[in-house]
Order: sequence, then C-alpha cells, then structure tokens
Amino acid sequence: MPTHELTRVIAAADQAIMAEDFDAVMDVYDDHATLVIRPGLTVVGKGPIRKAFVAIAEHFDHSLKITQDKMTILESGDTALVLAEAVLQVRGATGAPQSLVRRATYVFRKNAAGKWLCLIDNSYGTDLLNEG
Amino acid sequence: MPTHELTRVIAAADQAIMAEDFDAVMDVYDDHATLVIRPGLTVVGKGPIRKAFVAIAEHFDHSLKITQDKMTILESGDTALVLAEAVLQVRGATGAPQSLVRRATYVFRKNAAGKWLCLIDNSYGTDLLNEG
Repeated sequence: MPTHELTRVIAAADQAIMAEDFDAVMDVYDDHATLVIRPGLTVVGKGPIRKAFVAIAEHFDHSLKITQDKMTILESGDTALVLAEAVLQVRGATGAPQSLVRRATYVFRKNAAGKWLCLIDNSYGTDLLNEG
Repeated sequence: MPTHELTRVIAAADQAIMAEDFDAVMDVYDDHATLVIRPGLTVVGKGPIRKAFVAIAEHFDHSLKITQDKMTILESGDTALVLAEAVLQVRGATGAPQSLVRRATYVFRKNAAGKWLCLIDNSYGTDLLNEG
C-alpha cells in the first residue's frame, strides 16, 4: 500500500518542530486552525499557535523530539481524520530522556490548490474526555 | 455554558438509530461520509452507510440502545471534531443486556445552509490503532 501523502506532511511538520523552524511549522496549519496545548487550553489561529510552539520549545529546553508511530487515516472527500501514536521524547529534570506516548487525533483538509492543511491538532485524542 | 448545537444533532441521530428511522439517520450524513463499521471495515457514501445501519439493527436483534455520555467538541471554522464516550447497550446471547463503552471520534462540517453533516463516523476512536 503506498504511503498516504499526509504521512509525509506530518513527518515534515515534526521535522520542522524539532528544527524550531516555526515558519515551516505554521505552513501546515489553516488560518483558523485549533491547537490543543493541553487539556483545558486550546488556541485558535496562526498567531497564537506559533506563540504556543515557541513556548513549548522553551518549556522543554529545546530538547523535544517527536515521531508518529502507528497511523490510521480516515478520509471523506477533501477532509481526513488522522489517528496517530505520537511519541514525544524530552529531556527530563535530571537530564535523562523521558518518553511520552499519546494517541493523537488530527483533522486535515485539502485546500483548492490540493495542499493539506491542519484544521484541528489534538495530540491528546480521546483522553480529553478524562477532564471534567 | 450553552449546549453545543452538535450535542442536539448527535442525540437526534441516536434517537433515529434506536427508532430504526433510517431516513432520519441518513439525513445527518454527508453524501461522501465515511463510517467505520468495525476495525478494518469502512464504508463510504449514503447507500452503503444506510445498508450498514440496517445490518447492525438486525445483528443486535433490534435491541440496540445508544447514548453519548461525556462529549468534547473542538471547532475550526465550519469543521468540528467531536470526542464522545458512546455507551451501547444490546441484548446479549442470553437475553441479558450488555453494555459497551467506546471513546468515539466524529468529524462534522456545517454546510452552506448552516446544517451540520457528519463526514467521518468512527465510534472506535484511537482504538483503531490497536489493529495491525
């Protein structure tokens, strides 16, 4: 089975996050995209999302590594729901690497020019239901 | 906080499924909607989705009850990702009721007339990543 185009788009976004190339990161998001920073804290729009990525890089002392393990993509016309096992590796308080595995949900839409843009970036997946 | 319009739309769809009013059920789906019947089995389009609902009703001997417990809705422009704890109650082989709880992911889009339509119906949520 050929690799879905979105697998490449998401891998490129992860590379851009790790390189802290925030222009390239933002190129993946729709103007009205929604990002879940953490349960209970969501931002909308490119400006706030860019600020969040800068803050996240600082928060993890520029040590954040991201890869997507398993991925399942469900499509309907120009819209896709991506389910992914996201593996985040960061340097912990002791300096030793720590791994976090999250089951993420991303919604993408292909625009008129045929380019996939992220509308909803929720790396917490259905774990958001644990809140409240 | 006022109840999100999609809460009402989804509750009405669940009522229609339980009433086996398949015309009303299909009214909630986009023409190009994708339904995950079970892991590994996905259908696209109103005809196949309607057939699936008829088969599911038969399969559970017309005993299926559905409610959505907790729900979290993430929006981006005209698109929404719904995370929901779906509770399915069916009559088991012995005649006793059995409950299944699933953490579901649904993608909806508001059409030009302002009506929410379901694009992707995946009641298995990120559990689809358990496959393969």
